[in-house]
Amino acid sequence: MLVLKGSEAAARIKKEVQEMVEGLGGHVPTAAIVRVGERPDDLSYERNVMKKIASFGMEARSFAFPEFIREGEFQAEFQKINDDPSIDGILLFCPLPRHMNGRTFEELIRPEKDLDGISPVNRARIFAGEKDGFAPCTAEAVIEILKTYQIPMEGKRAVVVGRSMVVGRPLSMLFLKENATVTVCHTKTADLKAVCREADILVAAAGKAGMISGEFVKPGAVVADVGINVDENGALKGDVEWDGLEAAAAAAATPVPGGVGSVTTAVLCRHLAEAAMRKYGAEQAQN
Amino acid sequence: MLVLKGSEAAARIKKEVQEMVEGLGGHVPTAAIVRVGERPDDLSYERNVMKKIASFGMEARSFAFPEFIREGEFQAEFQKINDDPSIDGILLFCPLPRHMNGRTFEELIRPEKDLDGISPVNRARIFAGEKDGFAPCTAEAVIEILKTYQIPMEGKRAVVVGRSMVVGRPLSMLFLKENATVTVCHTKTADLKAVCREADILVAAAGKAGMISGEFVKPGAVVADVGINVDENGALKGDVEWDGLEAAAAAAATPVPGGVGSVTTAVLCRHLAEAAMRKYGAEQAQN
Repeated sequence: MLVLKGSEAAARIKKEVQEMVEGLGGHVPTAAIVRVGERPDDLSYERNVMKKIASFGMEARSFAFPEFIREGEFQAEFQKINDDPSIDGILLFCPLPRHMNGRTFEELIRPEKDLDGISPVNRARIFAGEKDGFAPCTAEAVIEILKTYQIPMEGKRAVVVGRSMVVGRPLSMLFLKENATVTVCHTKTADLKAVCREADILVAAAGKAGMISGEFVKPGAVVADVGINVDENGALKGDVEWDGLEAAAAAAATPVPGGVGSVTTAVLCRHLAEAAMRKYGAEQAQN
Repeated sequence: MLVLKGSEAAARIKKEVQEMVEGLGGHVPTAAIVRVGERPDDLSYERNVMKKIASFGMEARSFAFPEFIREGEFQAEFQKINDDPSIDGILLFCPLPRHMNGRTFEELIRPEKDLDGISPVNRARIFAGEKDGFAPCTAEAVIEILKTYQIPMEGKRAVVVGRSMVVGRPLSMLFLKENATVTVCHTKTADLKAVCREADILVAAAGKAGMISGEFVKPGAVVADVGINVDENGALKGDVEWDGLEAAAAAAATPVPGGVGSVTTAVLCRHLAEAAMRKYGAEQAQN
């Protein structure tokens, strides 16, 4: 079984990003990483993102706010970042604390700076299969790994387990764009195992450790595991039971860790470079 | 085989709309029907819509512009309609003529007046499965017919043939909201027949007369036909070969004409009443 390594995809994307940055006439793409509160997941992802952006030759600034900041106050601060011409892209950690209305900020973030595809304009573009929308980075990371290993998608059956706005729904639309035939499964799916066994490409994005065993996998299928679950010993576990894949005769699979998750931040970096390029292109056109 | 009549769904929706209108303290919901050019399809749909809105006890005003109007001029006129407080909802015929940028108007139309769900905000809401978005009327009409006949959707396999932004994509999201397991097929789907035969609920929205024959239908399946094709004699033909359904042992199907198409305008009317109700509710809350 072929192991689909996130590092391969990330390296390919890094090259693309470096070429893009070189074309920016000395401008260094700059991201704002905006966090409210101190959720451990957010802190860990923030460290990864800051490091990755720097390693791709770009800049990241962290904006952290206390968990109990009033919504109006945070909104004013967020608007400053949103309007700051020195910021090319924004990553806003979601969900926001409960006393805030997430939708307000989804609608506020400028679509051209919206690195993780949370604004209605970007969602609508991904939904419609248009070229210029920013997709949620994790969803796009799945497609990027498959492309890196030249796994054909056109005309193939892609089955996505999970229907979140972070992975399942946008990923199903990205698969449609690649001309795959897409099925979306979820907690109410009857006979999940049988549906998964129809898949040429099976994506587990349910957030439940080990729920996809070898029995869910058709021989020859490609499996992408989006799950990041922490077990009782603090180890990372995917949604897929890795040990069953070999016996199920899967053709290829992404490991956890070292698979989809490690491509997500690279995709974020490409979005940042793209955002900067579009701005730069527009400025050049004006001069 | 049970014939799923659009008229049954339309009658049910009409009652709902009439109750909504009665709660509006004498205000009559008013729609603007905006057309550029004289496409025969648009003219015919416009007549249907105007008639239907009147028969539901509401008002429709037609705004027609010449095909070769300059984009800027049309935009100014459209903005007036968009901003007019006496207009509760807008139906803009799409696609616009080629010299115009459709996206400009999708982004311009106020989401709260967007009766056919073309604005990014409504698209994003339908994509996310949120409650308050307006879906494209034809997509919603399919769900409404199924609900009228109490056809269960939860846990069922729904297969949608077609991936347009008018039907296939939004309908797949509406099926997800009903907890169906959804598959989207299209021109690149390999072995379309086999995929269609997995369906408990099969929706044909490909725009190709008679392309779905009895062989595509699993015994006991429910078939919804969204196709409206005109044959060489001027007769309406669906995407489904009606004559093969009985032999295929389909449980139920929508005819063409008299099926989904006849529910679309009723759904539009409900959107109009909802738009007026929300505005009225907001005004009452202010006083």
